[in-house]
Parts: sequence; C-alpha cells; structure tokens
Amino acid sequence: MPIYNPPTEDMQFLLHDVLQVSAADIPGYDELERDFTAAVLDEAGKISAEVLAPLNAPGDAQGCILENGAVRTPEGFKDAYDQMRAGGWMGLDADPAYGGQGMPYLLGTAVGEMFVSANMAFNMYQGLTHGAMSTIHAHGTDAQKAMYLPKMIEGSWSGTMNLTEPQCGTDLGLIRTRAEPKDDGSYAITGTKIWISAGEHDLTDNIIHLVLARLRGAPEGTKGISLFIVPKFLPDDDGAPGTRNALSCGGLESKMGIHANATCVMNYDGATGFLLGQEHKGMRAMFTMMNEARIGVGLQGYAQGVVAYQNALDFARERLQGRAATGTANPDGPADPILVHPDVRRNLMHQKSFIEGARAFAFWGSELIDRAHRADDPQAEALIGLLTPVIKGFLTDKGFETTVLAQQTLGGSGFTRQWGLEQFVRDARITMIYEGTNGIQSLDLVGRKLGQNGGQAVMAFFDLVKGFIKENEGDAALKSDFLDPLKSASKDLQTAAMYFVAEGAKNPNNALAGSYDFMHLFGHVCLGLMWARMAKAATVALAEDSANPGFYETKLATGRYYMARQLPATALHLARIQSGADSVMALEAANF
Amino acid sequence: MPIYNPPTEDMQFLLHDVLQVSAADIPGYDELERDFTAAVLDEAGKISAEVLAPLNAPGDAQGCILENGAVRTPEGFKDAYDQMRAGGWMGLDADPAYGGQGMPYLLGTAVGEMFVSANMAFNMYQGLTHGAMSTIHAHGTDAQKAMYLPKMIEGSWSGTMNLTEPQCGTDLGLIRTRAEPKDDGSYAITGTKIWISAGEHDLTDNIIHLVLARLRGAPEGTKGISLFIVPKFLPDDDGAPGTRNALSCGGLESKMGIHANATCVMNYDGATGFLLGQEHKGMRAMFTMMNEARIGVGLQGYAQGVVAYQNALDFARERLQGRAATGTANPDGPADPILVHPDVRRNLMHQKSFIEGARAFAFWGSELIDRAHRADDPQAEALIGLLTPVIKGFLTDKGFETTVLAQQTLGGSGFTRQWGLEQFVRDARITMIYEGTNGIQSLDLVGRKLGQNGGQAVMAFFDLVKGFIKENEGDAALKSDFLDPLKSASKDLQTAAMYFVAEGAKNPNNALAGSYDFMHLFGHVCLGLMWARMAKAATVALAEDSANPGFYETKLATGRYYMARQLPATALHLARIQSGADSVMALEAANF
Repeated sequence: MPIYNPPTEDMQFLLHDVLQVSAADIPGYDELERDFTAAVLDEAGKISAEVLAPLNAPGDAQGCILENGAVRTPEGFKDAYDQMRAGGWMGLDADPAYGGQGMPYLLGTAVGEMFVSANMAFNMYQGLTHGAMSTIHAHGTDAQKAMYLPKMIEGSWSGTMNLTEPQCGTDLGLIRTRAEPKDDGSYAITGTKIWISAGEHDLTDNIIHLVLARLRGAPEGTKGISLFIVPKFLPDDDGAPGTRNALSCGGLESKMGIHANATCVMNYDGATGFLLGQEHKGMRAMFTMMNEARIGVGLQGYAQGVVAYQNALDFARERLQGRAATGTANPDGPADPILVHPDVRRNLMHQKSFIEGARAFAFWGSELIDRAHRADDPQAEALIGLLTPVIKGFLTDKGFETTVLAQQTLGGSGFTRQWGLEQFVRDARITMIYEGTNGIQSLDLVGRKLGQNGGQAVMAFFDLVKGFIKENEGDAALKSDFLDPLKSASKDLQTAAMYFVAEGAKNPNNALAGSYDFMHLFGHVCLGLMWARMAKAATVALAEDSANPGFYETKLATGRYYMARQLPATALHLARIQSGADSVMALEAANF
Repeated sequence: MPIYNPPTEDMQFLLHDVLQVSAADIPGYDELERDFTAAVLDEAGKISAEVLAPLNAPGDAQGCILENGAVRTPEGFKDAYDQMRAGGWMGLDADPAYGGQGMPYLLGTAVGEMFVSANMAFNMYQGLTHGAMSTIHAHGTDAQKAMYLPKMIEGSWSGTMNLTEPQCGTDLGLIRTRAEPKDDGSYAITGTKIWISAGEHDLTDNIIHLVLARLRGAPEGTKGISLFIVPKFLPDDDGAPGTRNALSCGGLESKMGIHANATCVMNYDGATGFLLGQEHKGMRAMFTMMNEARIGVGLQGYAQGVVAYQNALDFARERLQGRAATGTANPDGPADPILVHPDVRRNLMHQKSFIEGARAFAFWGSELIDRAHRADDPQAEALIGLLTPVIKGFLTDKGFETTVLAQQTLGGSGFTRQWGLEQFVRDARITMIYEGTNGIQSLDLVGRKLGQNGGQAVMAFFDLVKGFIKENEGDAALKSDFLDPLKSASKDLQTAAMYFVAEGAKNPNNALAGSYDFMHLFGHVCLGLMWARMAKAATVALAEDSANPGFYETKLATGRYYMARQLPATALHLARIQSGADSVMALEAANF
C-alpha cells in the first residue's frame, strides 16, 4: 500500500515565509494567521492520509460500473464523500452568501493538493462541482444562484462540464448539440457529449450538468454557442430533486487511468435546460470554468508527482542493494540503502526540486487569483491569465515526468501494481490531455496571451523578475547560486519572445512551431523565480536563528539542484525555438 | 484497432544504401543481396501485420491466467506461435549445426523490430528463448548443446533467465538460491526466483530455465554464483520431455503492461539442474545472455515508438479540427486535418526523427555484433561493448517518450483503451527497467566501459566520428546541416568524458552523478552520427538519379529536424554533468 505524508510543513513555509499571506494587502488574507492555516492544513492532511489515500488503489482496481443507466463508484467512495461533506471541505472558498466559508482560493489550492495527491480520481467529483459552481456564481441569475449554489456548496448536488462531442474537442465551433426554446422559457437540449467526467455516479442526490449547445439560427462557429444548466433531476418548487430529466449516461470509457472516476457518454434527448448567461455567449461563460479548471489540472499534475516522490524516497531508504562508491554506509546490513548511490539521488533530487518549485508556483498563481478577484487588481488578472497555460502545461508535463522518475526509482517493483507507483503514472497522464491538451495550452500562451494588450502582462512578469534580482543582488550567496542563473534563464525567455515578435510577423508558423518549447522555457523561468524567492525566505529565516535550521538548509540545497541541473534547460528550448519552423514544416503531408 | 505498417522500405535503405551490407567484409553478409533481404522482410512484415498485431490489444485485455500451476496465454497465442515456428523464424540467426538458418544477427534485428512493434508481449516468449539458446551455445558442453539447441531452435522448447530474487535484482551477489551436488553429477536447486518472464506458459512442450544459484562454500558475492540448466521436464533418453521437475510457478505478477507475457514467481524445490559452464563462473556466462538481451530491449523501446508513431500519424491525417494558420487546407471539410498545425507536426517530427535514427543505431550495433563474432574483430567487440548500455538506456528512454508523444497526438482518444496508444505506453515502460534499469546501464557505461583498456573503445568512437566528418566536409549541404552540428555534439561528449577523467579522480561521485546524462549525451551523438550517415546515403542516391527521390528528400528533411531540434540537447547534458556531484549529494539521507 503506497504511503502519503501531507506536506504541511512545506505549505506553511510557502504561506508564511515566502508569500507572507497574513500581511498581504488582499481582503480576507488577514485571517490566514499561522495557527489558523496550520489547523486547516492538518485537518485536510488527516482526511487525505486516513480516508482518501487508502481508497486510491482499491478504487483503481475496482473502477466504476454502469448498470441500468446508474454508475456505481468503488466501495468506500460514498462514505468518504459524506465525510468530506460533513467536514465542509466542498465550500471552503465558496461565497458565504450561499453557505460557503469564504476562504481565499489559495487555501483551497493548498488543501486541494493534498486531496489530489491522496486520491485524484475521487477528488475529481468535487473538483468538477467546484468549477460548475463558479460558473453559475459568475453568470447565473439570482434565482439560479439561489437554486443551485447552496446544494452544490454543501455537496449534496454535484456538477459537470459538457463540452466535447465525438467530432469536436479542441474545435468547439463544430458542436452539434441543439437547444430549442420551449414556451415556459426553458430549452429542449438534444445531442451527445463524450468524455464527461463525473457525468453519472452515486455520490450525490442530483447532478447539475453545464452543457454547451447551439440555438437554431445561431451564428456559425464558437460565436453561436450557448451554455445551459441541465439538471439530472429537475428541482421541484421546494428546490428538491423532482422529475427525472431526459438525459442518460450511455456508456463509460475504458481508460488508461483515473478508473475510479466515471468518464461518461451523456445523451441528451430533449432534456430540459436553462440558459446560463446570454444567448450565444456560452464560450465566454465556459471560460470561467475552463480557466479555473486549468489551474486545477496543473495542480493535479504536480500533486501526483508529490505522492510518487514520497513513495520513491521511502523505497530508496529501505531497499538494500550494492555499496556506496565512497565507502560502506550500512556495515551491519548485507548492502547499503540505494539512496547512497549518486544516480538514485540525482533522480530523487530531480523529483524533489520540481515538486517543491511547482507547489510554490501553484500557490503564487492562487495568490494572484485572489489578488485579481478580492482586490480587483487588473494587473494580477492579466498576469494570471498569462501564467494559466504555463501552470497547466508545464506542471502537468513535468508532474507526469516526475511520476515516471519515481517509478524508475523502484526498478521492477515500480512496474508491478502492488507498489502503486504505476497508478500514479497512469493517473497523471490524463492531466497533459484534458482541459485543453498541453499543445493547446502552448498555443493559448503564444498565440493569445503573449501579445495581449501589447504584451503588457509578459513585460510585467519580466519587471517582476528584474525587480527581485535587483533587490537582492547584494546577497553574495543568493547571487551566484540563484540570481545569476535566474537572470540568464530570464534572458533566454526574453530572447525567445523577441524572436516571436520578429519572425512570427514574417510567418506565423515561426512562432507556432516554437510554442511548446516556449511554454517549457517559461515554466522553468517561473520555477527559477520561485526557487530564488524560496532561497531568499530560507536565508532570512536562517539569519533570524530559526528553531528549525535543517528545514531551511534543505530548502537551499534543493534549490541549488534546480538552478544547477534543471534551469539550464532554457537554453535548449531557446535553441529549438530559434531553429524556426522550417525543419518542422518541411514535409508534405503525404511524405510523413 | 491500431494499425501496423511494416517499415520495410526504410529497413532496405539502411541495409543497402547506408550499411551496404552485401559488400561488407563480414562472413555471411554476401548473402544479403537486396532481393533476398526484401523477401525476408516482406514475409516477416506480413506475419507481423496479419498474425501478431491483431492479437496485441486482445492479449493485453485478456492477460495470462494461472490455474493449478499452469499458465494459459491469451486466445490465439498458441496458433500464432505455431505459425512462427512453421515459418522457421525462431532459428533465423541460429547455428546451422543445430538446425538454425545461420543468418546474420543484423537480419534478426530487422525482423525482430517488426515482431516487437506488432506484439511485444508475444515476442518475449521467443526472445527469452533466443537468449537462453545463445548462452547454452556459448557455454554448454557438446552433449548439452545437442540435447537442448535443436528443440529450442525449432521452437518446440522455450527458455528463460532466472536472476532476480526478492532481496536482490541489481545486486546479484545477494542471491540465496542454493545448488547441492547430487551423486549423478546433477544438482538439486532450491530457492525462489521472481519476475521470470515466460517462466510458465502453454506455448511449448518444455521450458528450459537458466538459473543462477550458489554452491555450498562458494565465495561470497558475485564470484560465488553458478549457472544451471533446469528443465521443466527432464529430457528422457530419447531427448523427449520426461519426468516433471520439482519446480513450479507460484504466482503471476500484476503489472502495468505486457499483460500477455507471464511474469512468474518460480519456486525450485530441490529441482534437478545441470551445471552450465564452470562452477562459480555463472555471472560471466549469464552476461552472454544479458548483453544480447540488452540490445534486444533497446530494440523493444524504439519498436514501440515505431508503431505508436504510425498510429499517431494516421490519426493526425484523419482528425479534422481547427484551421491552418496560413490558410485553409481542406476547404470542403468542416475543418483541416490536425496535421496542418505546427505543434502537431513538431510532435510527429520529433517521433519520426527519433525512431528512424534509433533504427539506424540498432542496425549499426547489430552489424558490429556480426563483425565481432563472424569476423572475429576485437575492435568491433569493444565498440559494441561500449555502445550496448547506450542502445539499451537511450533507445528505451526515448522510445517510451515517443509512445507518450504519440499518445498526446490523439488528445483524449489517446487516453482511452480503444485506440491502443495507451497500451504502447504501458508496454514500453518496462523496457527502461528490465535487463538492468537505465540507471544501471549508465553506471555500466561510465563506471566500466568508458575506461576499459585505457578508453580505447571510446577513442575509436571519436575517431570514427572525426573520420566521417573529415571525409565528407567537402559537401557543403552536408556540412552545415549535418556535419557541423555533429562536430559540436561530439565535442560536448569529449568534454564530458574529460570532465570524468579529471574530476572523477578527485571524487568518484563526480562521474557517477553525471552518468545518466552522459548516457543520453552519448545516445544523441550516436543518433547524430546515424543521421549524418543517412544524409550522406540519401545525397548519393539523389545524385545517382534514384527512382524514388521523394523517399530520400524526406529522409534529409527528417534528419535536418533531428540535427536542429534534438541534437542540441547535448549542451544541456554537458551542463548538468559539469555541475558535478555537489548539488546531487548535498542532502543527508534524513533530510530528503
């Protein structure tokens, strides 16, 4: 059975030493005192380790079963779900006006990481609900909000997002699902949606589907798509689940991973739906959901890396094999723990330095979301818009890679189901695909976000990096180990951006062919910045004679690994970008 | 159902345009005329595509079943196995003195790639037999060879290798399986072996286990291990399977992939075994098997990439989604094929340029094996010894990466079982682990092979690269696109090797911490050399007014992609190596 240790100490370090949340000028952050966040994180860690993690491997083995139109989730899921509801976790950062606890999004991210590390497939049921809730909150009428939000926040109803159809995923302009207005102001929804996570299950009394569909005579393409609320059971006058709606789960996908989450074919046969937001503006409303979901998926990616790393480390400490090249480390045993071997350490340091950097990036991104929404800061809004595809694409690619590295640490044991590592790999794999493949993220980054408003957001990012370097370059230790590498990596990123400006104007393919590498280049610079900020915080804590110097020294050592061995990847990504589109586009389609 | 197209045209290019086999000064190569190899490859391609590939997905879904000590392979496997036997494929490169066809190892590699692409789990049954056969051939007595080889070559008996035990995989010095001499000159073998591929199955009349065990009073560690032939059924006086031996399959592993191959726990309870080779020299004998197996595993890695790429390409041509940035490509359809998008092409070119380079590397390595064994060339022997860990480690890491990239091309479809890509990922994953994890390969490379005989082999490699560059630098097109990048990459490799010499002497960890990156650096230089050689061959063919210029132009374009976008990775690997062991070894074990 895989282990899971909630990383609450590292989270506290990020919240209080690095982000210094309780002093931040963001409404609501003053509540985030050290003791308060410690209590919340401890509780979330406890339910993660004791309730959710033990269900992860059995849930994978059992999967979901569709019988007579109903989906049965794995044994123990309903009990665990009820415990999560009872703990109030589903409304942690939701609007108090509808029963939420009104905590910052940042706290939701910290707690969410633990839930996802412990059991990704389980957490998706509430994750989708969260996205649907946010969309209704942002675009619903007062009546819709009053009808749906309290039930979703308390967790008795869940939510889904219905975008994909067999002929379209990325290109939603091809959607065929139809909506016909009815006399009572509602609509009849007809069509088939596929890959609907949590589309049907036995955890809640009702499921609120948000469905993209076309009205008759709507403009072609994405400008003619509307969004509808289509409940499984139509709420009656008292708001209780009433008449069964004309929708059904037509099948479950057989998948590589996340077996315990039901991925449904959903058939809508004239189902009653209610317009959410304006006619033909469905894509815009859906983007509320998608942006939040993309950050959530980035978190899933690195969170699978976190738990995979913990298990790899555990194995490396226990497994005795061979002797250290520099002298026996375990003379009383038949061999040394494999942790003594430099190549095993390289592998573990690679994992560790990524996941701690990724956590910092996700936390910082969440702080930006709070700053944008709670402090109405348009610069924070623009910056998180720019960083969202990086968080999604980079953290999932590297999160998956981390699970593969962790699996490798176990050798043959990593390939067997018994040790659980292979499940982390299979589950993490989807994060690079859903909510827009990582290729699509890179196009969003380079094709849309980079040039928006004359590139203001990316220039603000560069200013932020420069400002941090300037402010701290008097510190000699920080300078050579952290600031100089960051400066060099950031210069690579700027050079790449300038290349796109100069060469993309001649031929858009020059920018598009480099988009994926740009996303990774950007991700490395972000993690480099995170490590520089963490190193600064650790230096300060050590100078202040911290009670726990070992933690901060480890933090510095881990950061040095990232700067020395991971950050130099920026030069490779730049070289690829600067090679342009020629070698990428040279072949005729027939000649591949 | 996934497709599989035997890449016979590319194989013929390698054999005849690049390696020019029929003119090579290697005994037996004169038979490899163009028409002859075409006929063999076509036949192997046919059985791969028509018999083996259709069993791959069903075999994965069914897996193997253990009942009452017997293992049932998936439906259709026995029929397919009998067809392979009838075709004489199992003895293709085996000694004619025992019924083999005596073809070069190189031809076995070409044919083997197709079998593995079509159905890796199936091919393992005969792959293990091949390794066991080679070991008996190299170390057996005349009587042993006469007893076992004809049956194994015709495929009526199969073979296995039994190394791993619960407490040891890499560190075979910890083996506990015991061998007690009996009065008749045989031995009683007692112990438990795990992860024994094809340890029990229903495809053959007998299974010949090669088992590592210790004699009483044997020296400690790997110097006290002997190798034994332990047949499932003891051959009777006529050489037919007679008495059932005291060994049994105690269980099957539940694994991430290769479900159709039985991975067995094997229990030996005083089973009768026969010494193979000398007492206490088992490791040396086993290395015959392991070296061959390592090259075979490298082949498995890229072969899974080959079939994954073909399916990704097929999808990219059919799937309509979005429009090309440079103008509509498919005006009559609702959208353009996704192959028009630069990021999809980048992904496919990455796959294509790797697998064609990898195939060239595997073929070249196989030619070196033939040169070493058939022409008794000690330089070829030393060079392939050096390259074996690179072929195994680099081609499997990158082969797995290729399956992941191919899966990504399909978006959500890649995650579903229906399209088959996720199986290629799961099956390819084991290749990075078995026959020595890739970390172990990198240690073999840096810790043993690099410095052997004063580094003669690696110097011969550098001479070979320099010689090729010098010979061709008059060709301007080759020079800028191929030779200059190769020269630069090769220089990175030399710098890394020098770093190990200088810094490894101060502290062995400085070399060991860079071993993995060195293996990748070396792999890239090898593929760079392969692409330069292929480019040369393509240029010559085009100058000679080939009947098929499109093939050669595509080859050049694909090579340019590799040189421009993959080969620059050498600088990153060098930077990591030169950062030394400090950041890798900084943490105390307790502080991870």
